[in-house]
Amino acid sequence: MSAMPMIELWRGGMLESVHAGHAVIWGPGGIEAAWGDPEAVIFPRSSCKMMQALPLVESGAAAAAGLSDRQLALACASHSGGAAHVSGVASWLSDLGLAEGDLRCGIHMPWDKDENKRLTCSEAAPCQLHNNCSGKHAGFLTLNRHIGGGSEYVELDHPVQRAVKAAFEEVVQETSPHWGIDGCSAPNFACSVAGLARAMQFFAAANPEGSAREAAAARLTRAMAAFPELVAGKGRACTELMAACKGRAAVKTGAEAVFIAIIPEQKRGIALKIVDGGTRASEAAIAALLVRCGLLERADPAVEKRLPSVQKNWRGLVTGEMRLAPGFA
Amino acid sequence: MSAMPMIELWRGGMLESVHAGHAVIWGPGGIEAAWGDPEAVIFPRSSCKMMQALPLVESGAAAAAGLSDRQLALACASHSGGAAHVSGVASWLSDLGLAEGDLRCGIHMPWDKDENKRLTCSEAAPCQLHNNCSGKHAGFLTLNRHIGGGSEYVELDHPVQRAVKAAFEEVVQETSPHWGIDGCSAPNFACSVAGLARAMQFFAAANPEGSAREAAAARLTRAMAAFPELVAGKGRACTELMAACKGRAAVKTGAEAVFIAIIPEQKRGIALKIVDGGTRASEAAIAALLVRCGLLERADPAVEKRLPSVQKNWRGLVTGEMRLAPGFA
Repeated sequence: MSAMPMIELWRGGMLESVHAGHAVIWGPGGIEAAWGDPEAVIFPRSSCKMMQALPLVESGAAAAAGLSDRQLALACASHSGGAAHVSGVASWLSDLGLAEGDLRCGIHMPWDKDENKRLTCSEAAPCQLHNNCSGKHAGFLTLNRHIGGGSEYVELDHPVQRAVKAAFEEVVQETSPHWGIDGCSAPNFACSVAGLARAMQFFAAANPEGSAREAAAARLTRAMAAFPELVAGKGRACTELMAACKGRAAVKTGAEAVFIAIIPEQKRGIALKIVDGGTRASEAAIAALLVRCGLLERADPAVEKRLPSVQKNWRGLVTGEMRLAPGFA
Repeated sequence: MSAMPMIELWRGGMLESVHAGHAVIWGPGGIEAAWGDPEAVIFPRSSCKMMQALPLVESGAAAAAGLSDRQLALACASHSGGAAHVSGVASWLSDLGLAEGDLRCGIHMPWDKDENKRLTCSEAAPCQLHNNCSGKHAGFLTLNRHIGGGSEYVELDHPVQRAVKAAFEEVVQETSPHWGIDGCSAPNFACSVAGLARAMQFFAAANPEGSAREAAAARLTRAMAAFPELVAGKGRACTELMAACKGRAAVKTGAEAVFIAIIPEQKRGIALKIVDGGTRASEAAIAALLVRCGLLERADPAVEKRLPSVQKNWRGLVTGEMRLAPGFA
């Protein structure tokens, strides 16, 4: 099965651009709805950070380090590198007796407008704390200290990444057919869209009083939903959609237009990938699926911002709109 | 016929994302090569600015105002709002006895890094001169003064836009089935990808000593090719690809992933649209077609930047590459 059209951009009453993709909603009984090819193999990229954080929690490393839910939210984040994100990761590393130089995520300018402006206008250089994955890496370093691994914790055969791969494959219930190096240098393991949705369903249904893995999944989901601003940042889709859901769901984006949702009250997991990697479409699609599942109203500002029923130009003139393709969501 | 895959993004030996589109190469004898659906109807957006500038030149308005090739390059530009662009349009308006307030393009922050930083760090506001279309609008105002139209020159029934529509339909040799309002508030007329390529072939073959329209088309092509930095800006695809072509071709991007090329020495025109609107793919695709036509080497830095044979992450680790889809270019 091939990708199906999901998101359309209209101008002057004519379809101008269209994004196709794959999406799966997995409920307690299995697949409840699917579009495109559920078996399409994708890189989940940052949408799987809560899976990459499972060993951190289930191993006891998080408890041993006394990590808070705020820190676990940062471990699952693709944050904007704002003041709260940078200081949160900096103090976390300091608590571990480590520093920015121990990170292996690399450096990029922060997406946070205020911090980006501060650095730009002061001619200051960003550091690894600004990297959107620095919280995930602080989590890797916390696990690494607990299990006594070496400093190069992003290498494929390092105990930290071996533990991540094992947890990932067990939760998606697939043997990963490919792996790639992510933007932050950590390995990223491929899985099917259905497998990613099934894993998110496991997180949604996880019993806080259950196995070490279930308890870890439940706590990570709660941490993400409780601190939307730490998982992404001001104005970002994950932050605004989770804030609008008021703690009822955790959602997470991944590079190249992947998006997931975890809905504990419905024991439902959602995964989607827009095949062209267009983030505007993955954000619109996850917003539409949250509406379909009854978590948000179509008119909610967090939905309307991603799926604009009216688009205007620089002078405020109406130019067109974004629409769901026929048969999607 | 539907869109065909053109540009692939690979990671860890696996196809991660793919962009599909339509493309046509039109030569002296008609269509020489096509991918996807040549009859697909698209909005050319800013890729048709040289057609929107035809009435300005063929009416004699440009000559009456003593416009230089630099000014005609700005009339065909989606410029970055850098110092040279802003001052060029400001002095042009001043020569007309007009000012920034006479523009109807609206305001957005400039893409030019230096000017963007200057405004951001001085808390200064951008103006309509920074709008990437301000040169096109200065051209509209020059034509408008010549024909004595009213101040609202972007309205569909204004003499300026009626002249633009007539020239557009004559050169694409189609009756435009739709029109939309562009980001800069000017009407944008739909045409087929084949019609856009045919129009670019007319520009490529236009005789400077021929009809008023041919002379206008030839001069606009020469102006674009002669001043790549005015047509876009530092680091931009149009600028770097035209500079690499050393005056042998004019290329122009349009929003939502449209790209055209005019190759006078081959009397060839090229038009393409990536259906998902992904600019990274339209830039890669036009670069590949310029290589196919023998204007650029695959290894040219301007090509490699748009079609990277190696992609690296923040730490310089190789993560994958961009590839042409089988059967394209």
